[in-house]
Amino acid sequence: MNPAEVAAARDRLAGQIMRTPLLPSRTLSAIVGAQVFLKFENLQFTASFKERGALNCLLCLGDAERRRGVIAMSAGNHAQALAYHAARLGIPARIVMPRHTPNVKVAQTRVFGATVDLHGNEFDETRAFTEALAAEHGLTLVHPFDDPRVIAGQGTLGLEILEQLPETEMVVVPVGGGGLIGGVALAVKSERPDVRVLGVQMERFPGAWCAFHGVEAVSGGLSTVAEGIAVKTPGRLTLPLLRQHVDDLLLVGEQQVEQAVFQLLEIEKTVVEGAGAAPLAAVVAHAARFAGRKVVLVLSGGNIDMMILASVVQRGMLRSHRLLRLEVEVPDVPGGLADLTRLLADLDSNIVEIRHQRLLDSGSVRSTMVELLLQLRGEEQAGEIRAALVARGYAVRVPA
Amino acid sequence: MNPAEVAAARDRLAGQIMRTPLLPSRTLSAIVGAQVFLKFENLQFTASFKERGALNCLLCLGDAERRRGVIAMSAGNHAQALAYHAARLGIPARIVMPRHTPNVKVAQTRVFGATVDLHGNEFDETRAFTEALAAEHGLTLVHPFDDPRVIAGQGTLGLEILEQLPETEMVVVPVGGGGLIGGVALAVKSERPDVRVLGVQMERFPGAWCAFHGVEAVSGGLSTVAEGIAVKTPGRLTLPLLRQHVDDLLLVGEQQVEQAVFQLLEIEKTVVEGAGAAPLAAVVAHAARFAGRKVVLVLSGGNIDMMILASVVQRGMLRSHRLLRLEVEVPDVPGGLADLTRLLADLDSNIVEIRHQRLLDSGSVRSTMVELLLQLRGEEQAGEIRAALVARGYAVRVPA
Repeated sequence: MNPAEVAAARDRLAGQIMRTPLLPSRTLSAIVGAQVFLKFENLQFTASFKERGALNCLLCLGDAERRRGVIAMSAGNHAQALAYHAARLGIPARIVMPRHTPNVKVAQTRVFGATVDLHGNEFDETRAFTEALAAEHGLTLVHPFDDPRVIAGQGTLGLEILEQLPETEMVVVPVGGGGLIGGVALAVKSERPDVRVLGVQMERFPGAWCAFHGVEAVSGGLSTVAEGIAVKTPGRLTLPLLRQHVDDLLLVGEQQVEQAVFQLLEIEKTVVEGAGAAPLAAVVAHAARFAGRKVVLVLSGGNIDMMILASVVQRGMLRSHRLLRLEVEVPDVPGGLADLTRLLADLDSNIVEIRHQRLLDSGSVRSTMVELLLQLRGEEQAGEIRAALVARGYAVRVPA
Repeated sequence: MNPAEVAAARDRLAGQIMRTPLLPSRTLSAIVGAQVFLKFENLQFTASFKERGALNCLLCLGDAERRRGVIAMSAGNHAQALAYHAARLGIPARIVMPRHTPNVKVAQTRVFGATVDLHGNEFDETRAFTEALAAEHGLTLVHPFDDPRVIAGQGTLGLEILEQLPETEMVVVPVGGGGLIGGVALAVKSERPDVRVLGVQMERFPGAWCAFHGVEAVSGGLSTVAEGIAVKTPGRLTLPLLRQHVDDLLLVGEQQVEQAVFQLLEIEKTVVEGAGAAPLAAVVAHAARFAGRKVVLVLSGGNIDMMILASVVQRGMLRSHRLLRLEVEVPDVPGGLADLTRLLADLDSNIVEIRHQRLLDSGSVRSTMVELLLQLRGEEQAGEIRAALVARGYAVRVPA
């Protein structure tokens, strides 16, 4: 592939894809010790960068191909992106998802008018079915990453970043199959070889990282908070692009990405999915490599399940000691609970949840265990509260 | 006041305040039946528009005033905005908050280097203390809304909207004391009298709405999800501006605003506080008034407590029938719970929480009540699940 394909994609997409904001973040800059800029690809209509590649592919089709339609195998952002732009252009779209795909994802794709087929319990089975359907009906298969038209489309993000912030020194991109980083690195390096392009993978799905570093691939974990980049192996087309143009790939863990989702929500007021938070997790975890540099983090998508988001918030509050779980042993006498809750009120802590089970829980028949969830202002208050409880003679335990 | 003051403020603030994005929303447009645009003032550094007024006031001070410093009474966005810009300009800032202000808010203001005094149990007491401090130390009092420099600063938002989207037909703004809408209406109407400026207040705090409509003010509720606009009465300066330049004020309820916070989070991937969601709540509730028009909603701020946000998400999931609470009576025989959970799995619902208390809960000693929280794909599935349970002979109750 060559950079001219990305430039052609940019012209093709003009006016049909949102030019998403690229904004500086003072607070994240202070946290990381770099000059952090955020590229809000989560603000695309279907809430991810995937529209760029999908639409470029659609716009490359001939009349006959357009009439017959397209097909893709995806339960995620690629499915929504392709379904949306195909519908907009009047091109029939068929999306194949594994049989046990959550209904929400099916609904999110059907809403754009695509036909969704559920087939296969395993990846290979679903893929074989997709390829058979494509052959049978003469449909153009739009691969989520291993297609030059898709890679060129994703590459337009790199050009856009350079236009919006010519002084960019580093670009950090999440990596699954490598379509986004392949295109971005190709585009960025052709215009500005001095700009470093770095990719981020999950420790649980390090396929591209292993290939890039020449390490034998380990089979990953079963699940990750960054399901958008839970891809086992990079593509035939993307891997050479990575090897040629990408400066380095980094790994991050589940907790780090969860924390980054929480930080982007609380500090930057923006909703990102796990994959979209991986770049922030990487610059926090590897801060020395970015010190003082102008770094653009690609917030690649915002499609996170709202229940998972609520849970990330609550876990983030626990992690930052603004929520505190405590078990306190209270003497089983009238007023025992009243004394404890009065003390907690005087300590300016807010009881979010309380469980008091007198019949069975306690170590002694003369006392009872109270489980508390408290809202605090931060770590120092957690210490104060424990100290104050112990000083009053309570036995206090912090559950694991 | 006159429009030249707003134009002067714009020149003064240039380069020191973020020009926040103004973006169209296709999904909200479809929901409302208007052409909806969002002005992301929640992306300001301290996450609200309040920086405009506070900074304009600071930049209007003479040398002697700057040396002596400023003071304000606020526990919210105005406090953070003033503290941040005062610190940036090297002007001492003192912020007075009511005595029982949550520690989080104190900490969020102290972090910018301001001195925070906690004083007074009631509004009048805190205000008297603030005024006494100002007089004693010769500090300039920066009122959160009833000051021409503050109003002119907030008005720059109106000019910015007209620059970013000249085809704007309506601007919808949250209203507390009236500083934001007063400035915006003054600025917008002077340049574009054809553009309609509408304000939104909470049903629980309708002070400006009552004054505007000539209705006697009712005492409001105790609390609101939109605490940023929980102001009892508009200002001496702002009320005449509202009467002269604002087209109408609308009211919205707590649930409507909560729903709007949830929609902005899920659809637009952006975090807004209650006040910042009030404009969306208003256009949803009064959709006919906006039909087909190009409407700019001012997302005025993003400072929402993360625990409250998590709770808004969970309540939003319940409201949209993606979470379902059910109580099911299960026969107290071995395998009773296994049969029920298997059936729920076959119905493709996800158990988020389950409580099964055999000792005390049930209506009969031969059966037991199971409380369930299920994650579903939407309303139609809720009906399917209830029907399937009833068809299998379970007694099902939906708790209030």
